[in-house]
Amino acid sequence: MSERYQKGLEMLNKMNKNSYNTLKESLEDIAPDLARFVAEFPYGDIYTRTGLDLKSREIATVAALTALGTAPLQLKSHIKGALNVGCSKNEIIEIIIQMAVYAGFPAAINGISAAREAFKELDEEKE
Amino acid sequence: MSERYQKGLEMLNKMNKNSYNTLKESLEDIAPDLARFVAEFPYGDIYTRTGLDLKSREIATVAALTALGTAPLQLKSHIKGALNVGCSKNEIIEIIIQMAVYAGFPAAINGISAAREAFKELDEEKE
Amino acid sequence: MSERYQKGLEMLNKMNKNSYNTLKESLEDIAPDLARFVAEFPYGDIYTRTGLDLKSREIATVAALTALGTAPLQLKSHIKGALNVGCSKNEIIEIIIQMAVYAGFPAAINGISAAREAFKELDEEKE
Amino acid sequence: MSERYQKGLEMLNKMNKNSYNTLKESLEDIAPDLARFVAEFPYGDIYTRTGLDLKSREIATVAALTALGTAPLQLKSHIKGALNVGCSKNEIIEIIIQMAVYAGFPAAINGISAAREAFKELDEEKE
Amino acid sequence: MSERYQKGLEMLNKMNKNSYNTLKESLEDIAPDLARFVAEFPYGDIYTRTGLDLKSREIATVAALTALGTAPLQLKSHIKGALNVGCSKNEIIEIIIQMAVYAGFPAAINGISAAREAFKELDEEKE
Amino acid sequence: MSERYQKGLEMLNKMNKNSYNTLKESLEDIAPDLARFVAEFPYGDIYTRTGLDLKSREIATVAALTALGTAPLQLKSHIKGALNVGCSKNEIIEIIIQMAVYAGFPAAINGISAAREAFKELDEEKE
Repeated sequence: MSERYQKGLEMLNKMNKNSYNTLKESLEDIAPDLARFVAEFPYGDIYTRTGLDLKSREIATVAALTALGTAPLQLKSHIKGALNVGCSKNEIIEIIIQMAVYAGFPAAINGISAAREAFKELDEEKE
Repeated sequence: MSERYQKGLEMLNKMNKNSYNTLKESLEDIAPDLARFVAEFPYGDIYTRTGLDLKSREIATVAALTALGTAPLQLKSHIKGALNVGCSKNEIIEIIIQMAVYAGFPAAINGISAAREAFKELDEEKE
Repeated sequence: MSERYQKGLEMLNKMNKNSYNTLKESLEDIAPDLARFVAEFPYGDIYTRTGLDLKSREIATVAALTALGTAPLQLKSHIKGALNVGCSKNEIIEIIIQMAVYAGFPAAINGISAAREAFKELDEEKE
Repeated sequence: MSERYQKGLEMLNKMNKNSYNTLKESLEDIAPDLARFVAEFPYGDIYTRTGLDLKSREIATVAALTALGTAPLQLKSHIKGALNVGCSKNEIIEIIIQMAVYAGFPAAINGISAAREAFKELDEEKE
Repeated sequence: MSERYQKGLEMLNKMNKNSYNTLKESLEDIAPDLARFVAEFPYGDIYTRTGLDLKSREIATVAALTALGTAPLQLKSHIKGALNVGCSKNEIIEIIIQMAVYAGFPAAINGISAAREAFKELDEEKE
Repeated sequence: MSERYQKGLEMLNKMNKNSYNTLKESLEDIAPDLARFVAEFPYGDIYTRTGLDLKSREIATVAALTALGTAPLQLKSHIKGALNVGCSKNEIIEIIIQMAVYAGFPAAINGISAAREAFKELDEEKE
C-alpha cells in the first residue's frame, strides 16, 4: 500500500467513507485498479493539497458535476461529502441553483434531484 | 430600469464591472436584451441571494466553466471576478487543477490557460 | 407574485401545465425558488417574447435537449409541450432524427426513446 | 456520383452553397470521403425528408449547435443557412437567446458571437 | 433494400446482431427510418471502410462513448461488439480506465458499470 | 523525482516528447504541479499499464478527444503521439471520420482540422 493510497484513504475516511467502500466493492471483481487510482490521485494527491480548504473543494466538485450532468451518482456522493466537510444543505442547494446560469435549468433541476436523494439517504442512515 | 436590473448592475460593479461593460457593448447592436437578462437573472436574482457567500459562488462558477470547457472567455472573466471577491490566485489554480479529476486533464490544462491570460490582463491593466 | 411569475404561469398553462405542477411539487420542500425562477425566466421572460412563434421555440428546445443528451425528463416534458403548441408527432420525430447529424446517432436514438415515453404517457392520460 | 450525393448537392445549393464548397476544398487532400458523407447523409438523406420544413430544420440545427457550444464554425454556417431558407435575423437571435435556458448563458453569449460574425460576413459578401 | 443497407446488415450480423435487432424492433412503430439509417450509414458506410480494422474501430467507439457519458445503453452494446471483433474483456477495461484521464473519473467509473452489465448479460445469454 | 514521474517521462519521451516539454514550460510559472501530475498519472500510471498496447491507447484517446470537441490542442498533440506509436495518418483519419457517428459531423470535421494542423506541423519540423 503506497503512501499516496494511505493518504487518500485517510482523506476518504474524513470526507466520504461509505461512498468509497461501495465503489471499491463494486470495482473489486472487474477493475480494482480504478478504485486504487481513485484513492491515490483525487484523494491522495488532490484533496490533500494545501491552498484550498476542503469545503471549497467540495463546492467546486458539486458545481462541476451538476454542470456536466453526466454523473448523478457521483454528484450524490459529493453532496454527502460536502456536508461532511462543513457545507450546509442550504449552501449545496444554492450552488446547484446557480448552475442554471452556466449549464441551463435542466442541469440545475437534475442537480436538485440528486440533492434530494442524497439528503434522504442520509436521513435514513441516521434512523 | 427594473429593480432586478439595478440590483444586478450593483452586483456586477462589485464583481466584474469591466467584463460586463464589454459584454454589453458587444451585444448592443445585435441582442441588447441578452445583456439585460445577464444583469437581471444571474446577477440580480442569483448572486444576490443570501445562503452562499460570493467567494464560494465564484469558486462554483470557475469550477463549472473549467469542467464544461466550452466557454473560455467567460471562464477568464469569472477568474477575474473570483479575485475581486476574495479568492487568491493560488486558490483559483487549485480549483482548476482539481477539475482534472472530474472533467479530465485537458479541461484542467485549458482552464490554466484561461487563468494565465486572466492574470496577465489584470497585470497589464494595473500598469 | 411578480408580474413575470404571473406571465410565466399563464404561458406554462398554455404550454405544459402538468409538467410544471409536477416540477413545482417536487421542488417545494427543497428548492422552491428554483421552481419560481423556472416560471419567471424561461416562461415569463423568454417564451413570451415576440419575434419567434411558440412552435419554433419548442422545435429549438427539443433539438437542443436531444443534442445535449443530459436531460431526458426535460426532453420528454418539452416533447409534450411541442405537441401542445402545434407540432405534430411526426415533426418531433423528424427533429430528433436530424440530431444524429449534429450530436451523433446515440443522441438521436435516446431522443426517440424520450418521444416514445412522452407519446405513451399522453395516450394514457387521455384514456 | 450516387443519387444521394446528387440530391445532397442540390439541397446544399439551396441552403448553403458557399459553406459546403469551402468545406469540400478543405477536406480534399485529407478526408475527401467526409465531404462526400456530408453531402450524402445530412443533406441527401435528412434535409430532403418531408415531414419538417427546411426553416424548422435550420431552427433545430442552430439551437443544437448553440447548446453544444463545440462547433462555432458550423454554427456560423448554419446561421447563414437559416437565413437562406426563410429565418429572419431576429428569429435567429431569439433561438440563440433561448438557449440560455437550456445550456446556460455562456452558450447563448457565444452563440450571439457566431451570429454577429455570420451577419457581418454576409454583409461583406454583398458589398 | 439498398446495397448500403445490405452491407450494413452483414456488418451488424458480424459485430452485434442482437443489439441491432432490439433497436430495430424498438424503432419500428415510431421511427423505422432511424433504424435503417443506423444500418446504412454507421455500419454500411463507415465500419465497412478499409484503412482501420474492426477491433480498432470498436476501441475508438468504446472510448468515445465512455468519454461522452451520455449513452450508457449504446456503450453497453459496443462493449459487446468489441468482444465480438476481437477485444478481450481486459482490453475493454483498460480503454475505459484510460478515459479517467480525458473525461474524468466519474466517466470512467460509469463506463465500468456499463462493462459490468454487458459482461453479465453475455454470461446470462450463454447459460 | 518519484518513480512514477520517472516512468511517465520515459513514456512521454517515447510517445510525445515535444508536446510535454511545451506543456511543462507553459505551466512552470503558474501550475507546475499540474505538469508533474500529467507525467505521473496519465503517463506514469496509465499508459505504462500492460493489457492494452500503446497504439490502441492512442486510438482511444484520439477518438475520445474528437468526440468531446473541447480540447483541440490536446487532440493535435495526441494525433502526433498516435503517429509515434504506430498509427498511420490514414488510420487517424478513419478514427476521426468514424466519430461523426457518435458525436456528430461537426465533431468529425473539427477533428480533421486538428489532424491537418498536426500533420502540417510535423512536416515543418522535418524540413
